[in-house]
Amino acid sequence: MERIYLDSAASTPVADEVIQEMIPYLKQQFGNPSSIHYFGRETTRAIQLARKRVADLVSAKPQEITFTSGGTEADNLAVKGTADYAKSKDPSKNHIITSYIEHDAVLEPCRDLERLGYNVTFLPVTPEGLVRPEVLKEAITPSTALVSIMHANNEVGTIQPIKELAKIAHDAGALFHTDAVQAAGKIPVDVKDLGVDLLSMSSHKINGPKGVGALYIRDGLEIMPIIHGGGQESAMRSGTENVPGIVGFGKACELAKGRLAEYQRQVSALRDCLIENVLSEIPHSRLNGSRTSRLAANAHFTFFGVNGEDLIIKLDEEGIAASTGSACSVKKQKPSHVLKAMGFSYEEITGSLRISLSMQNTKEEMDRTVSALAGVVKELRSLSPFKSKYA
Amino acid sequence: MERIYLDSAASTPVADEVIQEMIPYLKQQFGNPSSIHYFGRETTRAIQLARKRVADLVSAKPQEITFTSGGTEADNLAVKGTADYAKSKDPSKNHIITSYIEHDAVLEPCRDLERLGYNVTFLPVTPEGLVRPEVLKEAITPSTALVSIMHANNEVGTIQPIKELAKIAHDAGALFHTDAVQAAGKIPVDVKDLGVDLLSMSSHKINGPKGVGALYIRDGLEIMPIIHGGGQESAMRSGTENVPGIVGFGKACELAKGRLAEYQRQVSALRDCLIENVLSEIPHSRLNGSRTSRLAANAHFTFFGVNGEDLIIKLDEEGIAASTGSACSVKKQKPSHVLKAMGFSYEEITGSLRISLSMQNTKEEMDRTVSALAGVVKELRSLSPFKSKYA
Repeated sequence: MERIYLDSAASTPVADEVIQEMIPYLKQQFGNPSSIHYFGRETTRAIQLARKRVADLVSAKPQEITFTSGGTEADNLAVKGTADYAKSKDPSKNHIITSYIEHDAVLEPCRDLERLGYNVTFLPVTPEGLVRPEVLKEAITPSTALVSIMHANNEVGTIQPIKELAKIAHDAGALFHTDAVQAAGKIPVDVKDLGVDLLSMSSHKINGPKGVGALYIRDGLEIMPIIHGGGQESAMRSGTENVPGIVGFGKACELAKGRLAEYQRQVSALRDCLIENVLSEIPHSRLNGSRTSRLAANAHFTFFGVNGEDLIIKLDEEGIAASTGSACSVKKQKPSHVLKAMGFSYEEITGSLRISLSMQNTKEEMDRTVSALAGVVKELRSLSPFKSKYA
Repeated sequence: MERIYLDSAASTPVADEVIQEMIPYLKQQFGNPSSIHYFGRETTRAIQLARKRVADLVSAKPQEITFTSGGTEADNLAVKGTADYAKSKDPSKNHIITSYIEHDAVLEPCRDLERLGYNVTFLPVTPEGLVRPEVLKEAITPSTALVSIMHANNEVGTIQPIKELAKIAHDAGALFHTDAVQAAGKIPVDVKDLGVDLLSMSSHKINGPKGVGALYIRDGLEIMPIIHGGGQESAMRSGTENVPGIVGFGKACELAKGRLAEYQRQVSALRDCLIENVLSEIPHSRLNGSRTSRLAANAHFTFFGVNGEDLIIKLDEEGIAASTGSACSVKKQKPSHVLKAMGFSYEEITGSLRISLSMQNTKEEMDRTVSALAGVVKELRSLSPFKSKYA
């Protein structure tokens, strides 16, 4: 069976060029970058090049990039590291603002900060999943240390007005972090133009290896580390560097930067065709999220009268890999907190399906997907207690 | 130039068998383990097998293994996660005991806990680098939440009496953690026999990839996570799993377990021959650490009247990679805290050299090393202001 992978927002295959650059750092160039001898110098050099490539993708300086074990650790470092540092300097700076639609990698550190005595405000979003700047303006106070709003949502693909939100944070004396795990390498991201202080990235979302990510920390900004030890990464992140992972991430960033315009054009064309055909061929289906401020790769639907989980399983049987939402919360079987925040009813949430594309997908795959989807939705509806409603 | 690598305590090359098992998880099997479709199930299965293999190396159950980004993160999770949990249940449990010769991955989290209001006792060691059980017995109090003593020291290779130390901790109502980064895969490690509650491991010290490690957390023991998010690793360590890294670590553990007896025999024979020849052929040289309770791969010398840093650089010019101590603190150019704690004078510390072996080293390499070392030590002494003393 020729499988169709429509879950690129969850993870992506490592590109061949990336694997080629990684292999030597598994075998021949295995030195600990902290060693001063030949083997150590070789890996130090490799990390320097990777740091430059990662920085280039988001128009940062190399010294502004701190490598982490992934997007989740980068988010934790940004949120907890900033909160900890701010409070250590001024105990009244104990307020964090985020939104209800953030990834758990931001929400959960925020909840942990609540346990530790911080105040956290979770901002509501519009039915399209947008954080309105006025809402942030109303919530911010002189005690706000940090505002953390994601660049693009992992479930519905909505792109937030980061530049405007960051300005509001700065005007009120707060720092601004954005989780750009779904954005960096998929839309143009320029840390200086956005005016953000901290920005999280992940390697495995853009055809780099799993187990590596980065946090952009604006030059001159001080935060507390969350992992302490040998002082690697300018003491912001201790532990022997994941050299092959970092090398692979660097190459993946270089590739992503080079193909960005083509990626956006090609993938959004596929997606638009998919959306059009789904909506026209499958009755009682709806596109969720924003039509305009949206990731090129994201299509997110509700099929009324259907359970999304069943849909995934049926599609999987036909060789099609899709998702109901964030991979990270699928197994927990709890209704999506993102769709809930967008005001969706229980039925709208359970009938939802996320399709996320890549440049490896083809027009033929889209056609096969639409036809499989139409059949599966019809079948599931015929088994539903509400079948008369959506016949 | 045929290079000789004598720094296996810093890092090791990834074994071919390990690379072979990793590659499919970079390219074809790239799914996010949290996804419920085919691609997700394949990687979930791979992690299960790896977890079993890692557990087997230390005689643990698979569910007692939490994968981390490396030994440093495992140490941070053990120390901070235990301290945080203990204090949240009983605010009087705010005392941690560790030793002066721990790796920075334990010392620095402990210092961070001091900043956060915990009391930390750093135990002294004997001139051989051993923590005496009586010393721990005297230091422990009812408020002690955790005792963290490394299994084998990364600089001088001394193996601690972990079983005895763990018993003292338990008798006093404290938990016991051991940093086994230098021990697991190199000496027999059985968590049940040792009676430890937490044990840190690292992949890249035993021919696995960098960027992955594990923390053994005894069944039933609760600690707080330090990285929060999607709830992976039973919510003890969130973030998309580093699948290829985890797979590689699992294979490395399997290989290490299979060769352990042969490793110890072969490597200690090489080391003993090296030690004997160094001490007999190089005047004013001394072996540091314990003769008996010592890692098979470790040889640690002081060459009086010589600067260890100069020694490394000269050896590197001859194609020999060695270290003055922990790779993680070499670049900081601060005198070894381990040797200081062992009561070494400044001269004894600066003249020190760590050689750490592997099964890839040969008798011929040992001979070349001794002869290079003899030449370099002689040369450096002839340039020293103390040359008359060590002529």
